[in-house]
Amino acid sequence: MAEFIELLQTRRSIRDFEDKAVPQELVVEIINESCLAPSAQNGQPWRFIIINTKEWIWRLSDESKKNLLAFIKEHPDAPIKKYEAALRDRDFNVFYNAPCLVYIGGSKKNRTLQVDCALAACYFMFSAVERGLGTCWIGLGMNIEDPELREHIGMPEDYRIVAPIILGYPKSVPKPPERSAPQIIRIVS
Amino acid sequence: MAEFIELLQTRRSIRDFEDKAVPQELVVEIINESCLAPSAQNGQPWRFIIINTKEWIWRLSDESKKNLLAFIKEHPDAPIKKYEAALRDRDFNVFYNAPCLVYIGGSKKNRTLQVDCALAACYFMFSAVERGLGTCWIGLGMNIEDPELREHIGMPEDYRIVAPIILGYPKSVPKPPERSAPQIIRIVS
Repeated sequence: MAEFIELLQTRRSIRDFEDKAVPQELVVEIINESCLAPSAQNGQPWRFIIINTKEWIWRLSDESKKNLLAFIKEHPDAPIKKYEAALRDRDFNVFYNAPCLVYIGGSKKNRTLQVDCALAACYFMFSAVERGLGTCWIGLGMNIEDPELREHIGMPEDYRIVAPIILGYPKSVPKPPERSAPQIIRIVS
Repeated sequence: MAEFIELLQTRRSIRDFEDKAVPQELVVEIINESCLAPSAQNGQPWRFIIINTKEWIWRLSDESKKNLLAFIKEHPDAPIKKYEAALRDRDFNVFYNAPCLVYIGGSKKNRTLQVDCALAACYFMFSAVERGLGTCWIGLGMNIEDPELREHIGMPEDYRIVAPIILGYPKSVPKPPERSAPQIIRIVS
């Protein structure tokens, strides 16, 4: 399984995409494989929303930027402050003009939603790479509050977004960011 | 990369292990690969604790069971109530007598700790399978509060356990649990 180790070691977050749509059946295939992830008590709380048009992806970017800027105004000491200039830039699309965006999330009531959806997102990212696609988890893209917008994309009222994942054909693959040495606090043996 | 798809489709949670230790260098190798996971703003907040003795794994199982039973007493309507009989059973080891337990977690102060550590745990589980090992994420094994016990295993005061993962050589591989059809709420295109 040398290929898998290679995949694990070469998967990168992609923020630069070819101007080429991702066939919808491919997205659905990737979602099918994401659902093979384990979940607490096999609860499978993940629910997917696919946004396949650049226009709507822009609208969601604008909505998320607006809400993040409001948050920064109220919490000027928050770490996200460092993104303020980018968020004020009208030309900055938090989704990097990707042709496709998938929200992975589910009901707020589910206590293990965060970790279950993160595992599904991990499967999603590997499944996508395996098909020659690139992905990036966009933390700046999850602040979607406008009720009309939420309704248009089908987001149930109690839906919490855990992982906004962009998807597309990579134009360039960046070098890996620096990794710290693994921090093993203790080995009890 | 047919092997990867196979790996993704055949990875199972393992709760039945050979009575055979996992070489420590293998655990460290797997942790090294886990650190290749992406994290919010490349924060890499994951910190690992390896428990490599059955005696200490039992102690941690007993501690977690004790705290879960206290929780159930206070919250008799909580879903975890269904595990009460098992938790009262002195012979039930929440870690299924696995030879090795790894805690993945980090500082409570980190806002993205849950999802970042879940991604590292996902890498961990794939990296382990690739080496012929089996894993299971043990949700019942994370309630470690006793200060002496925490100190013995090196857990810093502000450490939150996100993923308790057991590790060992599988004795049997169960059938996959049933999966619901993927729930795609909407495709906006």
